Amino acid sequence: MKILVVGSVAYDAVETPAGKRDSQLGGSASYFSTAASYFADVGLIGVVGDDFDPADRAMLDDLGIDTSGLIEAEGKTFRWVGTYTDDINTAVTLDTQLNVFAEFEPALSNEHASAPYLFLANIDPNLQLKVLGSMNSRPKMVACDTMNLWIDIARPALVDLVGRVDTLLINEGEAKQLTGLEHLPDAAKAITDMGPSSVVIKRGEYGVALFGPDFSFAAPAYPISRVIDPTGAGDSFAAGFMGYIASVDRFDEEALRTAAVAGSTMASFAVEDFGLDRTRTLTQSDIKTRFDAFVDLTRFNPLS
Amino acid sequence: MKILVVGSVAYDAVETPAGKRDSQLGGSASYFSTAASYFADVGLIGVVGDDFDPADRAMLDDLGIDTSGLIEAEGKTFRWVGTYTDDINTAVTLDTQLNVFAEFEPALSNEHASAPYLFLANIDPNLQLKVLGSMNSRPKMVACDTMNLWIDIARPALVDLVGRVDTLLINEGEAKQLTGLEHLPDAAKAITDMGPSSVVIKRGEYGVALFGPDFSFAAPAYPISRVIDPTGAGDSFAAGFMGYIASVDRFDEEALRTAAVAGSTMASFAVEDFGLDRTRTLTQSDIKTRFDAFVDLTRFNPLS
Repeated sequence: MKILVVGSVAYDAVETPAGKRDSQLGGSASYFSTAASYFADVGLIGVVGDDFDPADRAMLDDLGIDTSGLIEAEGKTFRWVGTYTDDINTAVTLDTQLNVFAEFEPALSNEHASAPYLFLANIDPNLQLKVLGSMNSRPKMVACDTMNLWIDIARPALVDLVGRVDTLLINEGEAKQLTGLEHLPDAAKAITDMGPSSVVIKRGEYGVALFGPDFSFAAPAYPISRVIDPTGAGDSFAAGFMGYIASVDRFDEEALRTAAVAGSTMASFAVEDFGLDRTRTLTQSDIKTRFDAFVDLTRFNPLS
Repeated sequence: MKILVVGSVAYDAVETPAGKRDSQLGGSASYFSTAASYFADVGLIGVVGDDFDPADRAMLDDLGIDTSGLIEAEGKTFRWVGTYTDDINTAVTLDTQLNVFAEFEPALSNEHASAPYLFLANIDPNLQLKVLGSMNSRPKMVACDTMNLWIDIARPALVDLVGRVDTLLINEGEAKQLTGLEHLPDAAKAITDMGPSSVVIKRGEYGVALFGPDFSFAAPAYPISRVIDPTGAGDSFAAGFMGYIASVDRFDEEALRTAAVAGSTMASFAVEDFGLDRTRTLTQSDIKTRFDAFVDLTRFNPLS
């Protein structure tokens, strides 16, 4: 197993300007593992309830994802209810039912605990810390995501966690919230001063900025005429990013740059349909073609 | 003369989080001609009042700008009062005094009217149309800018103008306002359907998107830690864009891509100090170094 991910597996009720889904497979770990499966072997640590549809597990299994760490507990699967009806870029959470997630105690097999790449997807930073602490040894590379909620209610644990990872992936607004700094390069500097050697700032339809120890990189988002459902775009970005790094087994500057575009590639697919509908049906050729479209979108000649 | 620009020359009172200036040289044609002077010979068509400081004309002259078309009329120079105190990305106009601009009748010399490249900077589209109609023959390439005010109060003239130019440069919000379309690729398509073969969508700190007949290009903005004064960033972008095109005397796809980065380069300087303070003191080496920083900011390797 190349990448271990811990995060949420959920049933989402989502409304966007393109339509509505009452109960679709979602959660940060579902999005991450599905998109990352195109790059490397992925193991998923999470919990679902006894209402979890065996077809959803089979879908993950069919993508080659190791779901042995996706345990089933008594009760209902985590549920998120959200809408993007006013602004396609910002989810409004209408309801969150933690359900089985409230009592979740991640347990890692020896194989899980030996994964060289670890992604701590968006969940309570105390759980993220627990998984990191359960690894047999420090993985080659650890990255994590978070959200405004944890900055608000679990800042000490989050700051502890950020100090232990190699890369923090975070939304622009959350980077400013975490650091109290309005200017992006300043916020990025404050974050790398907390510990990570690099930080990826996700800017939604405006693309991504990556700040490393002595370089910065920025890429626009792929222009999508019709965003159907932005849910999971950030997790899909993280999947392309970590997936590429795990596939080349390197995370130097050159690898991080390409990884950011691989992440943008996977995020661009995620929003093209509801839930995992686009991502789970991709081919390697689809991914290569879209990555090449990024090359073409961003290329220019030197000043003459 | 390679480029003719018509637009405003103003005294601005500006307040930003970095400070305040009571009366600084501004206006779309001042910003454009100053930044474009590093790329090609520029002639400026505009009007100032009898309060115009000879030192300001001398500054423009010293940059090699032909100010013979900058006429002096009885009355006061156009004055704009604005602030960016709440949001550095959005100017709030507190006062506009047209003054001598209210009666401005652009008059072109034969040399002005023969310029191969014409930039119609942000002024009343009826004036932009008048200047375009005063050219000896259709210039090789014509580009224009506009603003929300003209979309509101002079839409028919603006639509007429847009139908006659090669490239429209417009802010993202204004592109959506002009077309009524929320998704950028759709708005860009609607604009090119109006006539221009390409449209440049300016996204402020998020960079720029360029849509051509059969390609699109996007570039991030240069990350600036401390934006001092965003006034004139859009005009400076246009200057680098048109300036590069005029300097290579080509506006094919490859030239347009590089021009967009030259534009981003000039915009990145513009915001680093109040008014024209940074732009008017640049060297060719500064410009080359910053352009190369864009190359480094955006480069990545293919998927391996």
